Amino acid sequence: MNIVEIIEKKKKGNELTSEEIRYTIEGMLSGNIKDYQMSALLMAICLKGMNAKETTELTLAMRDSGDVLDLSCIGKTVVDKHSTGGVGDKTTLIIGPLMASLGVPIAKMSGRGLGITGGTIDKLDSIPGFNSDISDEEFIDLIKTVGVVDAAQNKNLAPADKYLYALRDVTGTVDSIPLIASSIMSKKLASGADAIVLDVKCGTGAFMTVYQSAKALAEAMISIAKLAGKTCVAVITDMNQPLGYAVGNYLEVREAVRFLAGKEQNPRLYRIVVELCKQMYKLSDMYTEMSDDEVEEIIKDAISSGKAYKKFKEFISGQGGDVGFVESLESAVDVDNISYEYRASKSGVISSIDAELIGRVSLALGAGRVNKEAEIDLYAGIIFDKVVGDFVNEGDVIATLYAASGGKLEAGKALIEESVSVSDSFSDSDIIIDVL
Amino acid sequence: MNIVEIIEKKKKGNELTSEEIRYTIEGMLSGNIKDYQMSALLMAICLKGMNAKETTELTLAMRDSGDVLDLSCIGKTVVDKHSTGGVGDKTTLIIGPLMASLGVPIAKMSGRGLGITGGTIDKLDSIPGFNSDISDEEFIDLIKTVGVVDAAQNKNLAPADKYLYALRDVTGTVDSIPLIASSIMSKKLASGADAIVLDVKCGTGAFMTVYQSAKALAEAMISIAKLAGKTCVAVITDMNQPLGYAVGNYLEVREAVRFLAGKEQNPRLYRIVVELCKQMYKLSDMYTEMSDDEVEEIIKDAISSGKAYKKFKEFISGQGGDVGFVESLESAVDVDNISYEYRASKSGVISSIDAELIGRVSLALGAGRVNKEAEIDLYAGIIFDKVVGDFVNEGDVIATLYAASGGKLEAGKALIEESVSVSDSFSDSDIIIDVL
Repeated sequence: MNIVEIIEKKKKGNELTSEEIRYTIEGMLSGNIKDYQMSALLMAICLKGMNAKETTELTLAMRDSGDVLDLSCIGKTVVDKHSTGGVGDKTTLIIGPLMASLGVPIAKMSGRGLGITGGTIDKLDSIPGFNSDISDEEFIDLIKTVGVVDAAQNKNLAPADKYLYALRDVTGTVDSIPLIASSIMSKKLASGADAIVLDVKCGTGAFMTVYQSAKALAEAMISIAKLAGKTCVAVITDMNQPLGYAVGNYLEVREAVRFLAGKEQNPRLYRIVVELCKQMYKLSDMYTEMSDDEVEEIIKDAISSGKAYKKFKEFISGQGGDVGFVESLESAVDVDNISYEYRASKSGVISSIDAELIGRVSLALGAGRVNKEAEIDLYAGIIFDKVVGDFVNEGDVIATLYAASGGKLEAGKALIEESVSVSDSFSDSDIIIDVL
Repeated sequence: MNIVEIIEKKKKGNELTSEEIRYTIEGMLSGNIKDYQMSALLMAICLKGMNAKETTELTLAMRDSGDVLDLSCIGKTVVDKHSTGGVGDKTTLIIGPLMASLGVPIAKMSGRGLGITGGTIDKLDSIPGFNSDISDEEFIDLIKTVGVVDAAQNKNLAPADKYLYALRDVTGTVDSIPLIASSIMSKKLASGADAIVLDVKCGTGAFMTVYQSAKALAEAMISIAKLAGKTCVAVITDMNQPLGYAVGNYLEVREAVRFLAGKEQNPRLYRIVVELCKQMYKLSDMYTEMSDDEVEEIIKDAISSGKAYKKFKEFISGQGGDVGFVESLESAVDVDNISYEYRASKSGVISSIDAELIGRVSLALGAGRVNKEAEIDLYAGIIFDKVVGDFVNEGDVIATLYAASGGKLEAGKALIEESVSVSDSFSDSDIIIDVL
């Protein structure tokens, strides 16, 4: 086998064999295959594609490049949920404890935020004492005792994916469905879940801006999961506007707490939580023959009864977090940051709040990372008083911006105006676009 | 400007600007742009192409990466001939002195052979004393005094092309018309000729095996030449069989000498020499309104009168070569190598001698380089007693193989059988396929 022949084969649009794909990933990690050869192959893959079999083989080769967690000791079907990333997406914080409160074990490995996309580990870091850097033993122990755990991705989880991703980032080869799908799924498969519910975001604030691409990515990931022997469902959800009222790490944890405590429940956030939990429940051992409405009732009851909130506090406490702090989040925002109230310049209905632009406001305020090495301010961000579809009078507060410095606050202020549109009318759209 | 944006632009199939192309080539040479970024861009170019304007900009950026020879001091139109490379192609050895004998200045920079393709400098190296490593001053002095010069490509001629070529070789990105055309033309433009006749080979022994690709390459090169302000004609010629009777450096010089001395003139070699010289003459200052037949008469007379042979000896002598040795080549082969006579196993007509396979026989005998660093045997090779269209009786000698060792001779013998076909009939084809 020879890498130049493999590159030329893909350049011609031919299918690579399992052996050729393994040879390539192993050669890349050993250094026998050079970065300039890998990047030529990556570009050929971007332009000529990979079929479902090749994409799965690539995923498995990346999964096997590092540790693969064995969760069979749990003795139950472990269900994972993965979001392709969006703005204001705090669903993992709510769904993990909610599902655990229903007896479905949740073993999650989450990432940090990059660009306009937030990461669950950053959010959890805003809770004093919370520790996401735990050993495999602690991880499994927490699933058994608490029923839910969320750890920062292990350094040795799919190292081939880390290597490839860094190379793709500097060679214009990020934008490829087989490469995106294999990158996501290699980590999912390595983290040991039996069943996976994918939340594929679609819209200005997501990597996939149009339905067709989101659907193609969802189908590629489902196909990988099935060929790898896992059950998998994908929910395509709208990311043209931020999800919920808050964007920013601490502010999103606060929204999740208030949601679970029944203090404030954004309707779109409620809708997506129920839909994703329903899909997860249906893949779990708890599911018996019942209607979707019956499953939804079980989920809604877990929220309204306070069971989910109780489990949330156990989850935080289980990983060393301060439960008193969590309870304090039910009330007003309490941060040292300076703030700015963005007010409506005219009366009307809010017709759009652009998710991508709000992501940029959030970055400007210091709540996100411009690059992997950047520091973030866990307490910066935005809280919306009004969301799409709400009526405003001139002078009403639409959103409050929080930042650590006047400069950052000004940078955020400069961008917020164009992110929000006030018109005479708006067209409503369901956050759930499709279930595959 | 940013290389990742440039790569993504080409990945989408968009046209790169002149500034983006210059930025890329300069960044590559300065090391600011990494090899893995260049190879991703090269693959995008292979798969998305480049239009005539982009290809010309790339060529000019590569030309300008090193020294550009100024031949304006010659005071006459300098005409160059370039072959895309074939098996047994000794036309440069004949055409240079021939054109010089007609008053057309010939300033050539030639390369060495690689793979099955021979190189003129290797051929000239087989003449004792011949020096191809000359200064710019000597180069220009020889054009003025002798009228013809052939130097090894200067180390600083289009260094960006050398860099890119080495990268393409190991990343599966050789096969691309814009990249091949710009590679060839960057060196041609840097070597200072005013007018260029391209001999684009087409067939099993050439890089372009089918007419459509050869034509596309020819058109790309003509377009570059025109946009760069040069006159240019391309002749597409057949390379399905070796050119002439000899393959191998010393053996090809001998064939050229015998051709010029009127001892033996292979008809296909005669035809291509006359056609290429006719095109060169028509681009030169010597040309006045006359018919093609009249030009051909001038060329043929230069051969039959011995003027071209006289100039050949002046050319060899001008660069330090041994003229007595040249004259000795008119008679029998005189080498220390061992030889093998390949004979017809049945009677019939020779219907094909596969150029690519003969190139491999030649490589096996030691006459060519497997890679750039390989040593070659200047005196190894093949002489054909019979060529395509000749009748043979069983036992007749078809070809004689020469090699320095028994092992190499055996390696050549093992391949010669399948290279030659003897049948009941053959279909004749003109070596000149098209003139563009």
